[in-house]
Amino acid sequence: MTPFNPALLTDLYELTMAQAYVEGGMSGEAVFSLFVRRLPASRNYLVPCGLDDVLTFFETLHFDPAALAYLQSLGRFSSRFLDYLERLRFTGDVHAIAEGTPVFANEPILEVVAPIADAQLLETFVMNQIHLQTVVASKAARIVEAAQGRTVVDFGVRRMHGIDAGLKGARAFHIAGVDATSNVAAGQAYGLPVAGTMAHSYIQAHDDESEAFRTFVRRYPDTVLLVDTYDTLRGVQKVIDLARALGPEFRVGAVRLDSGDPLALSFEARRMLDAAGLRSVGIFASGNLDEHRIAALVAAGAPITGFGVGTEMGVPPDAPTLDIVYKLVAYAGRGRIKLSPGKPVLPGRKQIFRVDRDDVAAYDVVGRHDEPPPGRPLLRTVMQHGIRTPEGRATLDEARRLKQREVSRLPAHLRAIAPADPPYAVEISAKLSDETERVRRQYLATR
Amino acid sequence: MTPFNPALLTDLYELTMAQAYVEGGMSGEAVFSLFVRRLPASRNYLVPCGLDDVLTFFETLHFDPAALAYLQSLGRFSSRFLDYLERLRFTGDVHAIAEGTPVFANEPILEVVAPIADAQLLETFVMNQIHLQTVVASKAARIVEAAQGRTVVDFGVRRMHGIDAGLKGARAFHIAGVDATSNVAAGQAYGLPVAGTMAHSYIQAHDDESEAFRTFVRRYPDTVLLVDTYDTLRGVQKVIDLARALGPEFRVGAVRLDSGDPLALSFEARRMLDAAGLRSVGIFASGNLDEHRIAALVAAGAPITGFGVGTEMGVPPDAPTLDIVYKLVAYAGRGRIKLSPGKPVLPGRKQIFRVDRDDVAAYDVVGRHDEPPPGRPLLRTVMQHGIRTPEGRATLDEARRLKQREVSRLPAHLRAIAPADPPYAVEISAKLSDETERVRRQYLATR
Repeated sequence: MTPFNPALLTDLYELTMAQAYVEGGMSGEAVFSLFVRRLPASRNYLVPCGLDDVLTFFETLHFDPAALAYLQSLGRFSSRFLDYLERLRFTGDVHAIAEGTPVFANEPILEVVAPIADAQLLETFVMNQIHLQTVVASKAARIVEAAQGRTVVDFGVRRMHGIDAGLKGARAFHIAGVDATSNVAAGQAYGLPVAGTMAHSYIQAHDDESEAFRTFVRRYPDTVLLVDTYDTLRGVQKVIDLARALGPEFRVGAVRLDSGDPLALSFEARRMLDAAGLRSVGIFASGNLDEHRIAALVAAGAPITGFGVGTEMGVPPDAPTLDIVYKLVAYAGRGRIKLSPGKPVLPGRKQIFRVDRDDVAAYDVVGRHDEPPPGRPLLRTVMQHGIRTPEGRATLDEARRLKQREVSRLPAHLRAIAPADPPYAVEISAKLSDETERVRRQYLATR
Repeated sequence: MTPFNPALLTDLYELTMAQAYVEGGMSGEAVFSLFVRRLPASRNYLVPCGLDDVLTFFETLHFDPAALAYLQSLGRFSSRFLDYLERLRFTGDVHAIAEGTPVFANEPILEVVAPIADAQLLETFVMNQIHLQTVVASKAARIVEAAQGRTVVDFGVRRMHGIDAGLKGARAFHIAGVDATSNVAAGQAYGLPVAGTMAHSYIQAHDDESEAFRTFVRRYPDTVLLVDTYDTLRGVQKVIDLARALGPEFRVGAVRLDSGDPLALSFEARRMLDAAGLRSVGIFASGNLDEHRIAALVAAGAPITGFGVGTEMGVPPDAPTLDIVYKLVAYAGRGRIKLSPGKPVLPGRKQIFRVDRDDVAAYDVVGRHDEPPPGRPLLRTVMQHGIRTPEGRATLDEARRLKQREVSRLPAHLRAIAPADPPYAVEISAKLSDETERVRRQYLATR
């Protein structure tokens, strides 16, 4: 990617609005709230991710000379506003749910408190990053659940949407519980376990499949051999022949099935391997797998030890996007909403309270941030005056453990692949309902 | 984004295979072919994009010291192989279809000819970039077609998958014929027209909608005013009131509708504006628009002058991914295929011939690269010995014009939004069929 100033990763209207605020002397404090308006039908909960990248963006936000020169060239911005941008550093507060803690519709994932122009300018980047990472982590959580403890490896980068998605996606998969990634750059960037052995091309480049297996095993004794290039079960037989030829030197970890019917083929491959005394050779499956196919294989007792999941996890076809928004909810001490049909907004700074019964989440209450807590408060102050708090410094592995712990505290029917019936209950507190109604009446009176 | 070495944007197995090639002395020339196996049901053609980024990647490919140190730390790579990577520069040839020329299933978008290890290592990056840009350009082409000459503006970046998708997507939209983007970084990177005025938050930050309009118009006289924050038609009335108050100074370009029924609201808004003598004020629509909604609005005669399209174009829900692959088709002078069920591969270097009748594309023939051309050859040599040829230096605006011209040469039923019946015919030449059958028999004989 061409190097660029992340501050410019913004919709133009953020800048035109910010200029109007700056030049109009509107410097009051705003609260913006990031939330998902509706869960996709195929999601019982979301796994929010992306906060760490957002906080890094806030910490390093600045408009560099090239960015300022470009904006000047557009002929829409005054030197006063460009001066404001040149000096701009983020000095606001951020309250957010920890990466990995399940979240539901209309619950704030993050609230930003800052002068209105500053907070407005952040919208596009914040949405872009939290949206992407939450989309893929929420899908991956279902795939991990379906695999019931079997290994899941991310094969997604080739068809994920661009470089950033491949990298940040691998990070989000790790939080969701995926075991390893094929993406080497993500392995480097985040210290993730990397995995991968051979593709069909390696087999094809040899005149003979057995010869291809032999040369590969010589170099990588404990590798995974891809057996479906020509005929899956003949491929398995060639692995067995190789084991016989190598004797105790044979240490192949698994065979990989990438086409055909994985249920029938895995049973037959297992039978052949077992009959040859190769019980320790696992069966790894890949190719168009998603949580439904994996759950069906697991339910049918398929003797598969691990799954490689690519496109379906990387660009989830059942929910490739979320109805995520970043909305002004307060300005200059007053709650703000809009009245557009079907798009309700809850005014003011808020809190999510999770009410547990016997260590299982029973329901959530979304309330005002300062009301007496009816349950565990989930929004924490992760940045204060532009500086990360200790709560804003969770490591990637802490987020992974948190996701594991918090998802395990959801009711079983919510963790399941099937749509939850009933869905998880999210109530609005009496105080917040009253406040919303008060603000709505105020608007209706003045419109 | 953290700076990283693009060479590492690869699946681990590319590196393990490459090491096996390098250490096994397999240095023969390979041909890899990139193509889409099936068109999504909702695509009559694809608009290939991403070649320019791929060629830049090839030109600049190198493993930097940090990348090499990381790979060494994995404990799987020999110093001989790491030396190979350190010296690696791309010296191969690339034959590709020009960005913007419509392409169909099983037609090569790009073929790489290089030593097998070198060509293998490129797979992940090449697929990632061409996939993303082709996915979004192919959707955008439908939206541009549906808009029938009305303005289309890209509002997608906030929900596109990451930073790279937002940038490269805006580029691909431009090739597809989109008029402008809200993405400022893309405007800077590619010299694209940028557009955007105000969001609901600007209205909400003011105690009064009329006051918000007034202050904004003072600063941006020819702006677009968003009228649906509280009640769309009351919003339109406030714009009319402002026009009366300002008299000849009123120069607002359009009102924007972002919720509710755009058909009914646009007719009523038009009626109100016309009655007030504001015929020059356009109506801009946004909010959950796709090619079907736009086509329906256009067919119903909705007086809408422009469309802002975001999530549906940026992450197309009807075809968020393509079944794109990068397959070995020749090694050491021999055609290569695999026999996995349902996944046919055409061996050897190929050519796409487009056969026109009266300047309309009638059908394509995929043949061997060296056979007598039955039509216009579409694959051109864009890189030779690692250096771009003049054909590899098409500018972004040339690609946009090419897309416009080549799509206009498709039969009308293919350009339409509805699924083409019959679909476009792609034949395999007799010579290529014979070659495929010959290679298949060879494999069947030796397996």
